[in-house]
Amino acid sequence: MTATVRKHDNVDMADAEIVVGIDLGGTKILTVAATPDGRIRARKRVDTPKGRDAVVAAMRDTVAAVLGEAAVRAPRGIGVGAPGPMDPRAGVLLEPPNLPGCENLPLAAIFRELHPDADIHVENDANAAALGERRFGAGRGVDDLCYVTISTGIGGGIVAAGRLVRGVAGTGGEIGHTILEPDGPRCHCGLHGCWEVLASGTAIAREAAAAVARGEGAAIAQAAGGRPVDARAVDQAAAAGDPVALRIVAAAVRYNGIGFCNLIQILSPARIIVGGGVSHAWDRYIAPAAEWARTHAFARPGGMCAIVPADLGDDVGALGAVAVGLGDAEA
Amino acid sequence: MTATVRKHDNVDMADAEIVVGIDLGGTKILTVAATPDGRIRARKRVDTPKGRDAVVAAMRDTVAAVLGEAAVRAPRGIGVGAPGPMDPRAGVLLEPPNLPGCENLPLAAIFRELHPDADIHVENDANAAALGERRFGAGRGVDDLCYVTISTGIGGGIVAAGRLVRGVAGTGGEIGHTILEPDGPRCHCGLHGCWEVLASGTAIAREAAAAVARGEGAAIAQAAGGRPVDARAVDQAAAAGDPVALRIVAAAVRYNGIGFCNLIQILSPARIIVGGGVSHAWDRYIAPAAEWARTHAFARPGGMCAIVPADLGDDVGALGAVAVGLGDAEA
Repeated sequence: MTATVRKHDNVDMADAEIVVGIDLGGTKILTVAATPDGRIRARKRVDTPKGRDAVVAAMRDTVAAVLGEAAVRAPRGIGVGAPGPMDPRAGVLLEPPNLPGCENLPLAAIFRELHPDADIHVENDANAAALGERRFGAGRGVDDLCYVTISTGIGGGIVAAGRLVRGVAGTGGEIGHTILEPDGPRCHCGLHGCWEVLASGTAIAREAAAAVARGEGAAIAQAAGGRPVDARAVDQAAAAGDPVALRIVAAAVRYNGIGFCNLIQILSPARIIVGGGVSHAWDRYIAPAAEWARTHAFARPGGMCAIVPADLGDDVGALGAVAVGLGDAEA
Repeated sequence: MTATVRKHDNVDMADAEIVVGIDLGGTKILTVAATPDGRIRARKRVDTPKGRDAVVAAMRDTVAAVLGEAAVRAPRGIGVGAPGPMDPRAGVLLEPPNLPGCENLPLAAIFRELHPDADIHVENDANAAALGERRFGAGRGVDDLCYVTISTGIGGGIVAAGRLVRGVAGTGGEIGHTILEPDGPRCHCGLHGCWEVLASGTAIAREAAAAVARGEGAAIAQAAGGRPVDARAVDQAAAAGDPVALRIVAAAVRYNGIGFCNLIQILSPARIIVGGGVSHAWDRYIAPAAEWARTHAFARPGGMCAIVPADLGDDVGALGAVAVGLGDAEA
């Protein structure tokens, strides 16, 4: 009898405490049920299907799956991290290029109908990642931080004075599309010489492919071993001393250094947390850029800014969504 | 008798409501006594004297003068806007290049001793200006704004999600020293191609002087009428169609446009408020830069950002200091 009551209490506790985080991406949906301190009780990953109704159904099914596995009927909150552009206050996707068919999708309203007792929040994926690192990862207890992901693109999320910098349009933190080289190459965003087109993994791969096309990329192509040349192949060729790879690395390092430096000047963060595929080759691509930024920014904010690796790995999106579900974007 | 009591009540009211703002600059000190809604009851302006003790004495004397004129014994608060670098939380100037002798000057402690019942706050002058425009000027009621001053230098202050962006070092908002052209000219700050060295009044004057030295600046020199060529002379020569002046204007417009665009991408402000001498030639230097920024930034934050002139004119520093004295930097 006592055991039964205790079990029932536990279920109620779990209902009150469990938060669902949905990392909605262009290729996968990763949904977790987690405690407010970030312990993942259940997870479900599916490929992102094509089309609006299929995406909504897949999200709904993953939520049901993790709630079932965690033995929770009604979560405390549900957070979604989704690609921009979006209106986070309304919880509506706008025209996300990576989710065709999901234009003007009112995600918050849809989940509010499914889970009327839960707090529902939707946020840009990079902002969600910043909140996730702040609550659970490399930014714990830090009131002024930037999260920077350097991957196929470059995205960011900013917390200043303890608050997420959403801005009036909800698009704050689009650091990858700041101009660092006005006569630089044209980005898909339309700008010339934005950070992303200069120093992302895509930019490094583009420069490597150009070197191969010019007949100068043999070492990089060899490192790629028959796969398309990418930032990892450039890293490997640079490690072996290939001068072409070293030149491509130096250019990416320079622009990442400028990008970090500009963030320090504008925001004086205590921490810049760097994630994304390119950051896995930390000593090659990030450490020298961080050193450049800290020594070129004003001495005081440069000296007070630590540039550190992200801590949450592949779970950053889902745990970021958990932080969003806890209301961190509105705090 | 009733009249006497009422008068006494009024004095008490005034004591409780009056805030002193001190705009401490390299050339002048402007101190005001004002109400919390920005009505200036008394003002005192003096040239900034040389040396630490003289600066402190001059500030103290201007405060006594405005309190005397306003018939107030004990102000509610005293705010100081002072040149950086500084530690605003401690209220200490660090090594302000424009105030020799004032290294490590503990302004907050000094005024706390003089006025133990007043709230004392010290803030960077550009941050103070941002808070002044937000409370009294072009940014009233706006939670996400940037103040940009384009003068001999370029400085800024940022309010995001209703809070001043000080950052961990208290240096947030140093937008003038973000890199926009990595191979550009070298700034006194040590960086190459920062916003200030590309588009400030000093930068415009430098380009004009270079044109004169090359023998191409006759129209600009004529507009200057024997004085050193400056942004105003370039504006006048451009108005008359001088192609050299138009080229100098176009370069400044381009970089101001990039600077504004980057602020929109990073912060999505509802308003960018532009002050400083160069902004007085609004249609020449600022309006086309604003248009460029709004149309090149992402559509949603670009469309939601108004770029507008500052509203407080020469009082921006002193009224900004009043806002600081009201605690706005800590809000």
